[in-house]
Amino acid sequence: MLILSNEEISKLLSVQECMAALEPMYRDVAEERVLFSPRVDNIAPNPHPHAYYAFKHMGGTWPAQGVQALRINSDVVTHPLVAGKPRRVKQPLADGRWVGLVLLFSTETGKLLAMFPDGVMQRLRVGATSGLGLKHLAREKVERLALIGSGWQAGTQLAAALAVRPFREVRVYSPRRETREAFVAESRKLHKVDIRALDSAEACVEGADVIAAATSSMVRVIEPRWLQRGVHISTIKTQEVDAEVLGRCDRVVMSNRRQTKHYDNVMQGTPNVKAESARGWWNDGSVKVNFPDLADVIAGRAKGRQSDREITAFLNNVGTGLQFAAAGAYVLKKARAQRAGTELPDDWFTEDVHP
Amino acid sequence: MLILSNEEISKLLSVQECMAALEPMYRDVAEERVLFSPRVDNIAPNPHPHAYYAFKHMGGTWPAQGVQALRINSDVVTHPLVAGKPRRVKQPLADGRWVGLVLLFSTETGKLLAMFPDGVMQRLRVGATSGLGLKHLAREKVERLALIGSGWQAGTQLAAALAVRPFREVRVYSPRRETREAFVAESRKLHKVDIRALDSAEACVEGADVIAAATSSMVRVIEPRWLQRGVHISTIKTQEVDAEVLGRCDRVVMSNRRQTKHYDNVMQGTPNVKAESARGWWNDGSVKVNFPDLADVIAGRAKGRQSDREITAFLNNVGTGLQFAAAGAYVLKKARAQRAGTELPDDWFTEDVHP
Repeated sequence: MLILSNEEISKLLSVQECMAALEPMYRDVAEERVLFSPRVDNIAPNPHPHAYYAFKHMGGTWPAQGVQALRINSDVVTHPLVAGKPRRVKQPLADGRWVGLVLLFSTETGKLLAMFPDGVMQRLRVGATSGLGLKHLAREKVERLALIGSGWQAGTQLAAALAVRPFREVRVYSPRRETREAFVAESRKLHKVDIRALDSAEACVEGADVIAAATSSMVRVIEPRWLQRGVHISTIKTQEVDAEVLGRCDRVVMSNRRQTKHYDNVMQGTPNVKAESARGWWNDGSVKVNFPDLADVIAGRAKGRQSDREITAFLNNVGTGLQFAAAGAYVLKKARAQRAGTELPDDWFTEDVHP
Repeated sequence: MLILSNEEISKLLSVQECMAALEPMYRDVAEERVLFSPRVDNIAPNPHPHAYYAFKHMGGTWPAQGVQALRINSDVVTHPLVAGKPRRVKQPLADGRWVGLVLLFSTETGKLLAMFPDGVMQRLRVGATSGLGLKHLAREKVERLALIGSGWQAGTQLAAALAVRPFREVRVYSPRRETREAFVAESRKLHKVDIRALDSAEACVEGADVIAAATSSMVRVIEPRWLQRGVHISTIKTQEVDAEVLGRCDRVVMSNRRQTKHYDNVMQGTPNVKAESARGWWNDGSVKVNFPDLADVIAGRAKGRQSDREITAFLNNVGTGLQFAAAGAYVLKKARAQRAGTELPDDWFTEDVHP
């Protein structure tokens, strides 16, 4: 049983490799050769001020690679206001750290093959998925990318966009100057492209061919008036757009329309938890959610962009255990070839009694 | 993060302790102070002859003890015929071993507290749950217990029954002489009671006050004609009885009527898998499944046995993650006090990035 660290995973998996690992999985999604488990969110009381406990897990079976993944998050969540807008913030109460884990099992022997923290892979698969959306939905010829958000997710959104389109300029906005400037400084080291931070969202999106949101916002961050002919917008959270924004789009593709969600809590009526379960347009009937998904587009069952004038949107609407199965199977192979990680005795994770 | 072995758990948890750990959890179930996760079964192809891969998980949040449990089974399953009847048999393909794991998390910090194989606890919580059913449903005065089955589950069924009622005789039947005699020899070492193996199920159940099935049978093992006035019957698998048997009962209690199940497979039409998903009376409408459950009875919201003449049944119909949360929280406390188990670095199971 192989233990991998976030650091090891970041050395083993690039956003390009992650896209290459995800693409055949999405084809198998379209062919119904995979299994989703329902994504489960359990919400329970927690003694931390204004916090609740959230236990989330999502599974994915990918027979073609003989792998079963289960991703687990055990979080203490708060919703502080940042620059006047509520965010979803996980508190690092596990000795100053967070708890997200991926478990990979073999569908051939049943064995637990590997365990690793989810953070680095989580960010790569979100970026890679948005990148695959962008590849099929953005115009071929692009100049400028506008990035709304400069936190943990923004880095892979940027890397994936640059991997699939030859952007010449990147403009970044997020509410806190310090954060966005640090992000820009860091990104300049990684990418040979003109990257600048701007003081307002309006200035950031002006003339952009692609507007990519990468925030933890609980409310809309892309304004309807920004959507000009030919633009592609991209979100990593359904709350980043709303019915008005989607109403202006000619073509919308979701990352996944097959993943069911099961949401349960023992704290009905608690304001934070209400905000959590309120998914806006996603649930309130204001938008008919019957968009095709990435698997349909990759398998050629739904269309990507059809003209330079279309306004397109890619909604990275829900994570799936299958993304971790695909990226995980790739990382595991590479880790074994390179003898990376820490091997623990298999006997600790198997048993000699028929359970 | 504490790793415990089956051997350590068997030293830390008796069936009596397990019953004591489960009882307050069941009261919280009745008061809706707990959360179930849907039990998920994913079925996928496996290269072993006549086998399929089954990935199962079930979660349970018990805020009163600050614990979140997730039990995971990663099995290769076959349905061989034993003495002419089909059984569900998990193949030990993980280097000759099986894969079932329990993960315990803290709902206060999010931390993964412990990981251990499920086998020993699985058997204890099944026994303890049937024992709690028996405590509320069997007559106070009993003489003879009939046990149908002598495999892995039979031992804790026996121990739990003896813990809650003063049986003077135990009769055991299972199809294979060798197995049942070995079980009887082993049980005689553990319990000071007259225990004998019999050659037929008929002889075994004759004059029994309680008939407890503890098999892996996919078909009925308790015959309707066996149900005389005052008897209590007990099952650990819904297939062990059918509509005809239940039709003869005056009072039926389930272990759990709140746990939802989610069943999915990529092998529709495969005979074994069809047998797996066919749950007989449970799903076919032949019995209206509106029996109260153990939580109702323990909390005083439903009645246990009301007279010596009633025929009662306890259906241990579905396992829950909450049983592992309750038994697990108890074992963890005791293990820490005794410094049992193997501590692994917490850093392997936490991360310094916001996932």
